[in-house]
Amino acid sequence: MKRLEKNVLNLLKGAKDASMKLANVSTKQKDGALFGMASALLKNTGYILSENSKDIILANKTGLSKALVDRLTLTEKRIKEMADSLKQVASLKDPVGKILRQWKRPNGLIIKKVSVPIGVIGIIYESRPNVTSDCAGLCLKSGNACVLRGGSETINSNLAIHKVITKGLGKFGIPESAVAMINVTDRVAVEILLKQANLVDVIIPRGGEGLIRYVSENSLIPVIKHYKGVCHLYVDKDADLEMALDIMLNAKVQRPGVCNAIEKMLVHKDIARKFLPQAARVLDDKGVELRGCPETLKILRGIKKAKELDWYEEYLDLILTIKIVKGADEAISHINKYGSRHSDAIVTKNKLTAERFLKEVDSACVYHNASTRFTDGYQFGMGAEIGISTDKIHARGPMALEELCAYKYIVLGSGQTRS
Amino acid sequence: MKRLEKNVLNLLKGAKDASMKLANVSTKQKDGALFGMASALLKNTGYILSENSKDIILANKTGLSKALVDRLTLTEKRIKEMADSLKQVASLKDPVGKILRQWKRPNGLIIKKVSVPIGVIGIIYESRPNVTSDCAGLCLKSGNACVLRGGSETINSNLAIHKVITKGLGKFGIPESAVAMINVTDRVAVEILLKQANLVDVIIPRGGEGLIRYVSENSLIPVIKHYKGVCHLYVDKDADLEMALDIMLNAKVQRPGVCNAIEKMLVHKDIARKFLPQAARVLDDKGVELRGCPETLKILRGIKKAKELDWYEEYLDLILTIKIVKGADEAISHINKYGSRHSDAIVTKNKLTAERFLKEVDSACVYHNASTRFTDGYQFGMGAEIGISTDKIHARGPMALEELCAYKYIVLGSGQTRS
Repeated sequence: MKRLEKNVLNLLKGAKDASMKLANVSTKQKDGALFGMASALLKNTGYILSENSKDIILANKTGLSKALVDRLTLTEKRIKEMADSLKQVASLKDPVGKILRQWKRPNGLIIKKVSVPIGVIGIIYESRPNVTSDCAGLCLKSGNACVLRGGSETINSNLAIHKVITKGLGKFGIPESAVAMINVTDRVAVEILLKQANLVDVIIPRGGEGLIRYVSENSLIPVIKHYKGVCHLYVDKDADLEMALDIMLNAKVQRPGVCNAIEKMLVHKDIARKFLPQAARVLDDKGVELRGCPETLKILRGIKKAKELDWYEEYLDLILTIKIVKGADEAISHINKYGSRHSDAIVTKNKLTAERFLKEVDSACVYHNASTRFTDGYQFGMGAEIGISTDKIHARGPMALEELCAYKYIVLGSGQTRS
Repeated sequence: MKRLEKNVLNLLKGAKDASMKLANVSTKQKDGALFGMASALLKNTGYILSENSKDIILANKTGLSKALVDRLTLTEKRIKEMADSLKQVASLKDPVGKILRQWKRPNGLIIKKVSVPIGVIGIIYESRPNVTSDCAGLCLKSGNACVLRGGSETINSNLAIHKVITKGLGKFGIPESAVAMINVTDRVAVEILLKQANLVDVIIPRGGEGLIRYVSENSLIPVIKHYKGVCHLYVDKDADLEMALDIMLNAKVQRPGVCNAIEKMLVHKDIARKFLPQAARVLDDKGVELRGCPETLKILRGIKKAKELDWYEEYLDLILTIKIVKGADEAISHINKYGSRHSDAIVTKNKLTAERFLKEVDSACVYHNASTRFTDGYQFGMGAEIGISTDKIHARGPMALEELCAYKYIVLGSGQTRS
């Protein structure tokens, strides 16, 4: 324990020192480093794949599900995608040093609000080894040092990727310790990490509900949660029903295992008799299991009755739970009670109803006549994504380079003192 | 305990429900409520003063220091200032509903990033009873419900102010529960509060180091810390020494008990022999106690030797600790190691040295040729201040109405689905 603690602290101190240097490295150097990381990944594909195969063998031995084994499996193609992603980040605008606002005070002081890196970012994640290089790249471009802690099921892959991408950083004036990785699987290491508020500025957990909860409950460092997505579609009485069917199908079926897919549909009572049978038909065609409130069950006979817990649950699967509501009011309060503040949509031709919904639904992203599936850094045009925040503090919704920055005030004077 | 827990939870649920309503109340209603609160304070001055006298009697009985008794003492004038402050907040621009950015995607989606209230803000504070109405006013104007928890030494004053300012809220469509106050002094109530991450969105602690530490270490809710100010003045070799003396005196002496006063002075070795004796003379005139590093002691004989702990300490008193440094590099790394990321200043005529200092010192506010005493919401032109954040997440430096807001994305479509 003592030795582990010392190791983790040394790692974090190294990252902290590196963050001070990295904050002042030029865009050219950072982009050079990102290209260097990308070509190192390509050059060392064989090594990474052989280390990855150790994780796969272990995963099969311990009986991990097929879906999980697939998630942690790397291929030549996936490694090429990781490299492409680093090059793509290099092509994005440097978010550091932007003058966000500038003004002059009556006493002549000039105040500039300028974007700066946050400092040291701790990222705790599960499964997919590509997160290692993706997060390292985004943190580096935004001038932040990072401390990575992946899941034990991908430790060999993560260590290999980490080794490969950090090796050449020195050439670009960036200390290797700017991309740090906790190289033990002992959970105690995470406990130690989460207490170091003097060395780490923010923690971003990426993974299942259990991980997020554990991190939030044990961290002394500010956490930006990337929690579950219990997303809703509300089909209003004034909806274009063809459009509603399209959006419903897209939001539920196109990729059901992601956080911006819908899990619940609320339908206005006046159109339920017309809309629900059509909806059930197309959803059934795609193999979607339906559950419903008592009113829904009167129209869609034979489907499962929704339990109270259903309204809170993120299925990440081909399941949709349906509720008939009296109107936008009930839809809004249902979403604010049971939703996860992620993404919710209304389909309606009525502008006033839409405005109320967009204003009163307390979620990161609210949609009028569009699919919730667009909640995504790339779809929003940010060019990248480190996650989707369901918190309200600092960053909300898709997070990319800008959201990995803080700001400082630079005040320029000519001898001003306060009277 | 069980009953207390139930009471606190009910209070928080009330605040949460109120926050949903308050988020959609018009600017006119909010400003009307603020004016109403102000005149209620004036109308009930007698009642507030008589409740305040109970706190004063108790404070004298328990032997609180004179300075502390003064802090909690209200007068007619102070109550008028509280009322004026509420009117001033009413005159500020509503920070809610501002379109921060708007763009169109190639698929026709229009994305608007819009400022919204954070939701429910918990404020835990000490001593000054005016914080009760100040915070209530700022939260109300920014559309947030608040839960106030003042110190036990001002419980009677706080309850009186709270009663007076919330009574008329209903007239303006604002539920009284939008300004909630925990009315027991039992610390267990704070423990309960800090666990309710589903009901409270952010905690702002205002007070001494002990309070801030307790809150940060026990909260499951995001905390924006308003920690200590260990502020530095660095007098460079290229400084205008007259200006340096002015700024030093202002930053140290004008109001030593506040967080933006300097506690340390770093002096370039090349000018130390010339500058320090002059500095010591004017500081001595104002009764400032000096402490110094070994090099300083060679010039200013007879002053106290600084201990390692001195470099970390916020004196909030007429004490200044001086270190002679080899140059800007040493000054920057000293500040980044020992400072509290609050406010630090350089005096120099050398633009390049200034630029490096402003860029590399990792503090909320960095000054060139001006006093650190300007770190303040009013001095920055924000028209208000709820505190000064020493954190990097969400808000940094002076916090006012804008910093009490989050944002959401409103996405307008015409049937778009993701392919």
